[in-house]
Amino acid sequence: MNTDSFSEENLVVADSDAQSKRRQFLRHGAAAVTGALAASAGLRSAIAATPTTAAEDAAPAAQGTLSIPPWSTQSGAQVGSHPYGTPSRFESGVIRHLRKTDKQYFSSSTRSPLQELDGIITPNGLFYERHHNGIPDIDPAGHRLVVHGLVQQSLEFTVNDIRRFPSHSQIYFLECSGNPGYTVHAKTAAEANGLVSCAEWTGVLLKTVLKEAGLKPEAKWIIAEGADGAGMTRSIPLEKCLDDAMLVYSQNGERLRPEQGYPLRLLLPGYEGNMSIKWLRRLQVADRPVHSREETSKYTDSLPNGKAREFTFVMEAKSIITSPSGGQQVEGHGFHEIKGIAWSGKGRIAKVEVSVDEGKTWQAAVLQEPVLSKALTRFVFPWQWNGESVVIQSRATDETGYTQPTITALVEVRGVNGTYHNNAITPWRVAADGKVTHALA
Amino acid sequence: MNTDSFSEENLVVADSDAQSKRRQFLRHGAAAVTGALAASAGLRSAIAATPTTAAEDAAPAAQGTLSIPPWSTQSGAQVGSHPYGTPSRFESGVIRHLRKTDKQYFSSSTRSPLQELDGIITPNGLFYERHHNGIPDIDPAGHRLVVHGLVQQSLEFTVNDIRRFPSHSQIYFLECSGNPGYTVHAKTAAEANGLVSCAEWTGVLLKTVLKEAGLKPEAKWIIAEGADGAGMTRSIPLEKCLDDAMLVYSQNGERLRPEQGYPLRLLLPGYEGNMSIKWLRRLQVADRPVHSREETSKYTDSLPNGKAREFTFVMEAKSIITSPSGGQQVEGHGFHEIKGIAWSGKGRIAKVEVSVDEGKTWQAAVLQEPVLSKALTRFVFPWQWNGESVVIQSRATDETGYTQPTITALVEVRGVNGTYHNNAITPWRVAADGKVTHALA
Repeated sequence: MNTDSFSEENLVVADSDAQSKRRQFLRHGAAAVTGALAASAGLRSAIAATPTTAAEDAAPAAQGTLSIPPWSTQSGAQVGSHPYGTPSRFESGVIRHLRKTDKQYFSSSTRSPLQELDGIITPNGLFYERHHNGIPDIDPAGHRLVVHGLVQQSLEFTVNDIRRFPSHSQIYFLECSGNPGYTVHAKTAAEANGLVSCAEWTGVLLKTVLKEAGLKPEAKWIIAEGADGAGMTRSIPLEKCLDDAMLVYSQNGERLRPEQGYPLRLLLPGYEGNMSIKWLRRLQVADRPVHSREETSKYTDSLPNGKAREFTFVMEAKSIITSPSGGQQVEGHGFHEIKGIAWSGKGRIAKVEVSVDEGKTWQAAVLQEPVLSKALTRFVFPWQWNGESVVIQSRATDETGYTQPTITALVEVRGVNGTYHNNAITPWRVAADGKVTHALA
Repeated sequence: MNTDSFSEENLVVADSDAQSKRRQFLRHGAAAVTGALAASAGLRSAIAATPTTAAEDAAPAAQGTLSIPPWSTQSGAQVGSHPYGTPSRFESGVIRHLRKTDKQYFSSSTRSPLQELDGIITPNGLFYERHHNGIPDIDPAGHRLVVHGLVQQSLEFTVNDIRRFPSHSQIYFLECSGNPGYTVHAKTAAEANGLVSCAEWTGVLLKTVLKEAGLKPEAKWIIAEGADGAGMTRSIPLEKCLDDAMLVYSQNGERLRPEQGYPLRLLLPGYEGNMSIKWLRRLQVADRPVHSREETSKYTDSLPNGKAREFTFVMEAKSIITSPSGGQQVEGHGFHEIKGIAWSGKGRIAKVEVSVDEGKTWQAAVLQEPVLSKALTRFVFPWQWNGESVVIQSRATDETGYTQPTITALVEVRGVNGTYHNNAITPWRVAADGKVTHALA
């Protein structure tokens, strides 16, 4: 234990510092309780007589009242009543965001509710989805992976064969290359950038399995194919397959969820999510790419001159403020912590800068540990809101020195025909009444 | 991308190395497919004609058959059909373990299925539970936290008041001090040590909130009290409260689950789980401990001389092999990876050693990154099983130099009256037929 911080914190806290801190945090914060009341009936004073109905309401609590809530006077649900746990019924609104305007829902997506999430791990139940022919219901006993083509020996694996190989676990983000597309009409952080999530993945390094088959010298690309009704097929440079590519069977400790590729998926850290083929059934080693449907009209970047950029694999540095963000309400002047996430397909985040004055000036945010390569990084920035209408925004710089651009800078280079690889800054406007909206919408 | 590994791996792989690796991994592994078959009908050859019914069956797959499974020929479930996702129906057996012999289930526990989990993050649905009067159903709008006693100003907080403070996220393990008790009859890793789990926690450093109230110089302990029907109460040294203690509202990105203290809990990294009071409603700052019920007959360590050790807070270094482990079946001779988890309440794990010869010799296992302080650390160890009956076991050493003891060494010091803080080595016997059982049972 840290006795330095003990004496230091404790004694400093006992006088002037505490006062200033109280001014800083509490102007619209907690309610004071008389020492006598708290000491004599502290237990009861902890309970509000008139619970506010909106959990969002941060108004001071009713004080000194003596009613006791039912959960303090009754037994709760029996232990073991939830063999696999679920969130509280009071959090039933925290779900993946589905765009209601899609024509059909076999090829569509859902977005992680970034504005509701903390830390860097996305719980499996809220991990974003992108499917091209719905979510298959695969019996792992009937699933196989074939590795063939330019190999010494073609091989067929069961899921348990794959689990026999040396295992590898790592925390990586995954992002759809269409996140968020070029729309600026996003109302919330989920709508703006919710096609990104982060998890601890466990599986086998792909190079370990390729060694098993034995690559022929002319091997240069690998064609990966999914077992779903869409038969998603993408071409992957062999260099990536022999670097950090993984065959994944578990996510955040447990087996993959059906919507994440159960029982087996490819994972290409830092590459556009579409290439991390789910429900993986086939890896064909080849000497050239296959130019599949998803590498022609889809997943290429249309440029102003009518040409398209093909094979733009890496997801470049990006960040977004998740609190306060679109659809939220800033309650009260004074101290607020600006929170958000940053990530880069090229490695670690080196810094995140925040501007609270329409981009005139930028200040460094604090990056929370651990700062991992190709993983979400949580940043925080202390902010005093004086009640004026302001625009807040963040920009990320990764370890290669690349900095996230403005949408203006991005459009100057790429025009507006493309819908992929938009990693532009998302600015939020905080109005005088505290309402937060997309500053470009 | 790593072109060195490209040329190196690729060309090496193309000849002798591949052969040895193949011998190493594949003796009982994947089935070979003729290149012609795979090339001409690779898609179909990836599918088994006769799926094995047991997903655990690692036997070679049927080859060259042409049947296509329904999930490859039909559309799957529509996107958005699972706004909050759940595991595959084929994983319905992966749940928290409840001891069926308990007399009642208001004060009981469930264990994480360690033998089914990968990596270091425990998904929230499988995080272990220990409740003293069931699981309360708390409306966050009606919940309050009072801080009072030896403070400059007593304060009452709503959950949203707490969320206004600067946030802190960190990955920590949590373990019940009764994990596993002194029983050696555990059949599985869950039964042996499943009262430990690990998550990314988000909340506020407790010292930040204590600064707000302002501590009086005579403050030395804090009495924490829960809002459940058991009113769990524990005494915590102020040094810990001013060090890394947290007030937590989120776990693995989303709000705490009801069984983990929703909407607000205390978290004391590295301390026995019982002290990280769930459903936290009161913090009384005092000059001495309260010696509550849970600090007398419970949560003290009975010694052979009839006395008891009180306030044994720290969970010392421990590890357990989760694969292969009790109840599992080692399939086939040759290569198997021994996998497990290690942790210490005193900081980082420095090394984990594995013995596969009844403890005669020990070899260093590989620790997977990230190796974080007071978090689970995943270790792996390559093993060639020749089919003989053997005992496998792991022992952890933390950064203080402390090494996990044998049960014999522990009992010599503490006797057998105590049931808490048993961090002894768990040895597993692998029989000649591959069955794995607890070597001491």
